[in-house]
Amino acid sequence: MDEAIALLRERRDEHLHWLRELCRIPSISAQPAHAADVRRAVEWTRDRCESIGLDAEVCETGGHPLVYAEWTGAPGRPTYLAYGHVDVQPEGDRTLWDADPFEPVVAGDWLTCRGAADDKGQVLVYLRAAQAWLAAHDRLPINLKLLIEGEEEFGSVHLGPFVTANKQRLACDGVLISDTGLIADGVPTITCGTRGLCYKEVRIHGPRQDLHSGTHGGPVVNPANALARLIASLHDENGRVTIDGFYDDVAPISEEERRLSQRFPLDEKQYAAELGVPGFGGEAGYSVQALRSIRPTLDVNGIYGGYMKDGASTIIPAMAGAKISMRLVPNQDGADISEKFERTVRQRCPRGVRCEIIDHAHADAYVTPLDAPFIAPARQALQAAFGGDVAFIREGGSLPILPMFRRELDAECLLVGLASPSCNAHGPNEKVNLRDLDRGAEAITRMFALLAAV
Amino acid sequence: MDEAIALLRERRDEHLHWLRELCRIPSISAQPAHAADVRRAVEWTRDRCESIGLDAEVCETGGHPLVYAEWTGAPGRPTYLAYGHVDVQPEGDRTLWDADPFEPVVAGDWLTCRGAADDKGQVLVYLRAAQAWLAAHDRLPINLKLLIEGEEEFGSVHLGPFVTANKQRLACDGVLISDTGLIADGVPTITCGTRGLCYKEVRIHGPRQDLHSGTHGGPVVNPANALARLIASLHDENGRVTIDGFYDDVAPISEEERRLSQRFPLDEKQYAAELGVPGFGGEAGYSVQALRSIRPTLDVNGIYGGYMKDGASTIIPAMAGAKISMRLVPNQDGADISEKFERTVRQRCPRGVRCEIIDHAHADAYVTPLDAPFIAPARQALQAAFGGDVAFIREGGSLPILPMFRRELDAECLLVGLASPSCNAHGPNEKVNLRDLDRGAEAITRMFALLAAV
Repeated sequence: MDEAIALLRERRDEHLHWLRELCRIPSISAQPAHAADVRRAVEWTRDRCESIGLDAEVCETGGHPLVYAEWTGAPGRPTYLAYGHVDVQPEGDRTLWDADPFEPVVAGDWLTCRGAADDKGQVLVYLRAAQAWLAAHDRLPINLKLLIEGEEEFGSVHLGPFVTANKQRLACDGVLISDTGLIADGVPTITCGTRGLCYKEVRIHGPRQDLHSGTHGGPVVNPANALARLIASLHDENGRVTIDGFYDDVAPISEEERRLSQRFPLDEKQYAAELGVPGFGGEAGYSVQALRSIRPTLDVNGIYGGYMKDGASTIIPAMAGAKISMRLVPNQDGADISEKFERTVRQRCPRGVRCEIIDHAHADAYVTPLDAPFIAPARQALQAAFGGDVAFIREGGSLPILPMFRRELDAECLLVGLASPSCNAHGPNEKVNLRDLDRGAEAITRMFALLAAV
Repeated sequence: MDEAIALLRERRDEHLHWLRELCRIPSISAQPAHAADVRRAVEWTRDRCESIGLDAEVCETGGHPLVYAEWTGAPGRPTYLAYGHVDVQPEGDRTLWDADPFEPVVAGDWLTCRGAADDKGQVLVYLRAAQAWLAAHDRLPINLKLLIEGEEEFGSVHLGPFVTANKQRLACDGVLISDTGLIADGVPTITCGTRGLCYKEVRIHGPRQDLHSGTHGGPVVNPANALARLIASLHDENGRVTIDGFYDDVAPISEEERRLSQRFPLDEKQYAAELGVPGFGGEAGYSVQALRSIRPTLDVNGIYGGYMKDGASTIIPAMAGAKISMRLVPNQDGADISEKFERTVRQRCPRGVRCEIIDHAHADAYVTPLDAPFIAPARQALQAAFGGDVAFIREGGSLPILPMFRRELDAECLLVGLASPSCNAHGPNEKVNLRDLDRGAEAITRMFALLAAV
């Protein structure tokens, strides 16, 4: 292993050159005008994989293509699938950037460019680690497969079907993903779960058209008032969601995870100051960190109806609507919660108005079992590379690909994110800390050896 | 009186010509491009007043001008002030009109044109009645003053200050207004009250900017959920408004008004079908007619916040707001209710968010005392002219000029509306029933004599 680590360190300049080259490609998957750039990024990745000694090919998906690469010269040893993406978010308002969004700028430990953190810098650590082993020993300690897609920022539309159609080829003992973040710069972090999502839209329909609130106000059930009443009824006084059966399948958090999660407590005062809120609320009896990670939620994401411009208009709106989404935790089932939501909302829709419910999306939560075989090697490798204890956190957002990998490949996912809390992914001046990328590449290099020994 | 009535009938063609001439002037007060047309309508009215024997002049107000006219040759007799307006609403979408909005079209009993019902056809009945008396008898049975403005459809901005500055000149025993409607075509109607208005806007502010609902959802108090909770709290289970002290000053309806109002009961089924609602709600224990006229209300007129476009976006909005207005009844005071609303909302604003309250407008309710001296003469004149019993109704909307006349002139208002329920004022193909205008003109002609005898 020492030779691989030494080689990894020697090649630092080459690796920085890789990152610059890949970052310069404006592979914006959401914009059809950039489809050729996405393909170029995918082809660049294939070429790089081949140059370091992997078998690699570009695969068509029906949407943007992806790269599949592998080295399977260690029969009998475990096989791991590393997943990442080389497409990026649109650059947004260019005037908010300090430089060209697609021209990498290095200053101190930081490289600024669209995609630097999300996910180009992170996906390259797997190529760096593979190169180190192959150049130093002509082999890897494990069998390695790489699945690097080109439409993660466009919803990974074709990834699931591709995985389903290629189950045999992608078969593995675990999935390695670096597309999340560090709890703080320099603190190695394993994200051991994400929440699910159930996203609905409720529209309350009243009179055929907007009515004069003077002439008709009083007997007419106002759709906006009715909607407010309905939304209010979805939480009780203690901040708990009142949808019938909402908490039925919520699994308690394991003692081990509870213990691990308490080692890096959240500074609530600082967090409130960052968000600009005067205080916190939510379900009574849980910490702020628990509320945003291991507890389910129900949030209005948007609300509309009636006269919404400046000034005053005296109407009773014909319709009012709200986009309402729930974040789910294990073992809540997205489809089941969706049904329970609809049943509760229809039951509570008052007389005098009609209720319409639109389904937007649902995804299941995902939690990495802490007894998965890769946990101990990952922790040991990260500690060695970063020189400090590993933080175990849950992410409050949703990653539908995680339950997809579990379902289709019968494999668990290890999330070793390397992005800084200040990386500003999706925003202007996205940046990545090069030292944390180096530490990450070293951790992955070490982990390959440690995974072989499990 | 018989000669005056006979003369009125003889002059029907001339009066129709007046209406056509006035309707052809596109006197849209809200559109600066039509300011000269408003002035033209006001000047036309002055000329007509002079031609029938009144002293008339155009008065500047700082906004659109108005006409003041009078005949005060009956010292010792009562003095009445007739109020109306000759400005009109914009025509709106011309494609929805069957003909040019400013070219009167007569078909059967109906004349279609913007302003025909609101208020040109109605205001002219006072000129027709005055002409009848002056042509037949060279005098009026009462002293008559006319105040006909040019910015009613633009909020009557300068009317109050003009009245305040001309109290002596406008002094009267009562104000006569024909700018409301008939309960049904051919059924004479006295509107004996209007509701007041208190219009507020509440904004709930949370985090500095929209947040990712996955990463931050749970502990962050969601402004849209908080707003919904606040709005829901403003009514109890029985549909009563829960603002502290909201009903304190609500005066009971008089026995006489209750008795009168029950003679023309509302067909609730037909009303629901017209509005397109599956049923009614509102404060328990009151009829639909009572709820929309003699009871106060609280309605959301508009609600907004977060992601309001198509599809889904997983944000916690930084802010959500609602336009909320209350219709008030005697003796609720607009300013008092405004304060009570603010106090209640601020008390109920949850921790973790901030509450901003914007004041849009308030106006007091108005009820005509049923023992006012003009009630009996008006009823008798209407019965004679229409040949049927008079309906007494309250209008649910607000007319701030009514409490203004009471306050500034110490005079009560008689609302004798002549517009059809199907007149579509403010909408396309506005129309007026010429037979009801004729009956109205006859009623006013008769009323002049009856008022003199009180």
